[in-house]
Amino acid sequence: MRLEDAVYRQLKKRVGEAHITRNPEDRVCYSYDAAPGPPFIPDAVVFPESEAQVADIMRLSWEKRIPVIPRGSGSGMTGGAVPVQGGLVMALTRMNRILEIDTDNFIATVEPGVIVADLHAAVESQGLFYPPDPASSAVCTIGGNVGECAGGPRAVKYGVTRDYVLGLQAVLPCGDIIRTGVRTAKGVAGYDLTRLIVGSEGTLAVVTRITLKLLPKPGYVTTLAVCFDDMEKAARAVSGIMRRAVIPRCVEYLDEASLGLVRHQLRFNLPDPARALLILELDGDETLVTTQTAQIQSFCLQSGALDILMASDPVQAAAIWEARKALSPALYKIASQKLNEDIVVPISKIPDMVSRIQTLQQESGLTIVSFGHAGDGNIHCNIMYDKTDASQKKQAHEAVDKLFAATLALGGTITGEHGVGLSKKEYLSWEIGEKEQSIMKQIKAVFDPRQMLNPGKIFS
Amino acid sequence: MRLEDAVYRQLKKRVGEAHITRNPEDRVCYSYDAAPGPPFIPDAVVFPESEAQVADIMRLSWEKRIPVIPRGSGSGMTGGAVPVQGGLVMALTRMNRILEIDTDNFIATVEPGVIVADLHAAVESQGLFYPPDPASSAVCTIGGNVGECAGGPRAVKYGVTRDYVLGLQAVLPCGDIIRTGVRTAKGVAGYDLTRLIVGSEGTLAVVTRITLKLLPKPGYVTTLAVCFDDMEKAARAVSGIMRRAVIPRCVEYLDEASLGLVRHQLRFNLPDPARALLILELDGDETLVTTQTAQIQSFCLQSGALDILMASDPVQAAAIWEARKALSPALYKIASQKLNEDIVVPISKIPDMVSRIQTLQQESGLTIVSFGHAGDGNIHCNIMYDKTDASQKKQAHEAVDKLFAATLALGGTITGEHGVGLSKKEYLSWEIGEKEQSIMKQIKAVFDPRQMLNPGKIFS
Repeated sequence: MRLEDAVYRQLKKRVGEAHITRNPEDRVCYSYDAAPGPPFIPDAVVFPESEAQVADIMRLSWEKRIPVIPRGSGSGMTGGAVPVQGGLVMALTRMNRILEIDTDNFIATVEPGVIVADLHAAVESQGLFYPPDPASSAVCTIGGNVGECAGGPRAVKYGVTRDYVLGLQAVLPCGDIIRTGVRTAKGVAGYDLTRLIVGSEGTLAVVTRITLKLLPKPGYVTTLAVCFDDMEKAARAVSGIMRRAVIPRCVEYLDEASLGLVRHQLRFNLPDPARALLILELDGDETLVTTQTAQIQSFCLQSGALDILMASDPVQAAAIWEARKALSPALYKIASQKLNEDIVVPISKIPDMVSRIQTLQQESGLTIVSFGHAGDGNIHCNIMYDKTDASQKKQAHEAVDKLFAATLALGGTITGEHGVGLSKKEYLSWEIGEKEQSIMKQIKAVFDPRQMLNPGKIFS
Repeated sequence: MRLEDAVYRQLKKRVGEAHITRNPEDRVCYSYDAAPGPPFIPDAVVFPESEAQVADIMRLSWEKRIPVIPRGSGSGMTGGAVPVQGGLVMALTRMNRILEIDTDNFIATVEPGVIVADLHAAVESQGLFYPPDPASSAVCTIGGNVGECAGGPRAVKYGVTRDYVLGLQAVLPCGDIIRTGVRTAKGVAGYDLTRLIVGSEGTLAVVTRITLKLLPKPGYVTTLAVCFDDMEKAARAVSGIMRRAVIPRCVEYLDEASLGLVRHQLRFNLPDPARALLILELDGDETLVTTQTAQIQSFCLQSGALDILMASDPVQAAAIWEARKALSPALYKIASQKLNEDIVVPISKIPDMVSRIQTLQQESGLTIVSFGHAGDGNIHCNIMYDKTDASQKKQAHEAVDKLFAATLALGGTITGEHGVGLSKKEYLSWEIGEKEQSIMKQIKAVFDPRQMLNPGKIFS
């Protein structure tokens, strides 16, 4: 169903002329997200400023059977924000108010369009802490984080977005507003609709208000860059670190190909033989963290680390993190296209998985760059290929098949934090059985019997 | 539908003669749980030993439209395990194997009938830690904890059962077996069926296998008993403690009436003017915990504490906890019946709530005993009355109405960890709107279109 002129005019009247567009240039800007894949052009893009406007837009779209695709900044990695059936893209970026930071109860209430880094800054300025910190935190929205159940490097100690969402307000596809969850530390009245909506990739309801649990801000943080001459050695060190009673707040790794990409721009010294880098962060009480950091340094040296750099101030810590954060964009230096998968394996299987990825690289002849959240077994595996080369493309897709098969054989999952969206939906059945998918689809039908909200995602 | 003889014989053949009963005496034993309320006699009680047996029983019951009520030890507080429509009680107590404790990946896989205290002992003997610890942990099962999303005193620091369940195996009402979630630290493939089933009070599926996240066992624990001459002073101290950056692992309180009940049997000295007691526990690194404990002691004294006892060994710590654990059974010394509600309010509202409960006590003329998890605002409020006195009974129910109204007005919830079950279902609409309940009921229908699994619970 295309968006009729009359409907467009009604929407324009509701949100104001400046907040809806169907210019071709604007529509192109909302035809893609951070996933590879062809663009899909929406019929229009609307920017509501309030829950009431979201509800009105949904009601009208419902009546006219126009697909609605809610989105934030479009930094998602699996095509979750792409309008595959056209329709109306609803960008929630104007709904970006932090409504309350309750320092007595350690709770924040926010609109979905708040940029995650802004949330971090706001709560930290009051001595509080919102742990989830995806690599895209400078641009991504908290609404998108809720939609995907975003994780990031600190998940190893602090958990993922799901663990911080206490309650939601959301608009159903039919336009009704619902409230879920609580604004207290506990609550079990009725079924857990909150966590059903978290991670549902914008397919069940449009989230309009989020109540988040906060923690006290850790008093002290140490950041270490630990290099090894061999990735498998680094992977074994990670397994060893995670078996100790100290849980670092971040355990990131960069493999040889990753280091090759960013080596020239590092603002710290990396020994020539270094072929793998771990970035470790510990936080908490200063005396304790200092002791634990020394223990971990000594364990890394016993595990064969070539060198350890400990950041002496926040500037040096930022320099270490730059290496990690520069990676995703730098990948396109290697090849014009990447298949970016965020598999997870049990921590003890990381060395096996690293070795499997090296074999895959040899077999396929493609460059595979892997890095990510080693501490929770969440590996971002980027299979690089030339998109104009049909044979490479085929090789790359075959490599993904093998990667997922190996991941599942090791007891893992095909997605730790990016979601299924469009790019992984053909693989969902590899992990989730027919009966379980049938239940999920019936739940989708409960929320969205007309299949109008972010259609064509997750399920084949 | 009554259980026909032919069906009973089929069930007996499947599980073995020793593992099913319809003797009147046995049926009476399975006609109640720890909630007040009339007994409901099941037609039979079956004790499966495996998931395959559970699936067979469900399939047969489905076909014959016999209600099935799954349960563990029956320690639930809201009638969740009571067979209100008769049918077949399915006690999962024989499925009590700890299948795996994976020390490399900090994961345990267990059957639902494992006693929570046995799980604690097993993982702690391997240096690991499963934090949820409801007061009934010596008798309650992990399956029941999953069904109710149990909490307990350590939730203030460590969260509730939901936060530790990574994945499930479960049998649907029709007898199909499903697998949900992951056995890795992260996973977002498809909708979150795991957390939908956690806290669903045995109304969606019969859980047969549970994958749990574990933590390293904390190295050091301190236990404090802090007494005050006034409950509101104690409540303000709790708010103050929770605003500091140190989160104790337990912050329990006992009010004057609670102390009156257990005072004579305390194995530690309580000053005569004491009218309120806080039990605080801190855990973690020894040096840090020692420092933090001293800070909290000094804060409590500034807040007007009369006296502080610090346990010097595990025996003394156990003596302190005895006071708290003896409370629930001791309540019946005051009156023959209690209405036991587990409301939650935002932490900063605890002093308001404590004062509201005191007013309620004066207004109703009934004894109200309150104690519980002050650190997360979860108050166990027991309204005592003589069950043979119709006027007292009416007063008590009116007091519950006022208690819930006050709780919701303060931004709280009517149940933090006991669930809705039978006893709170008439109040569910006070907290959960019509649209949200409609979604929940439709989800129930997805899992259980014949309404055969634990019927008559949660929803009116």
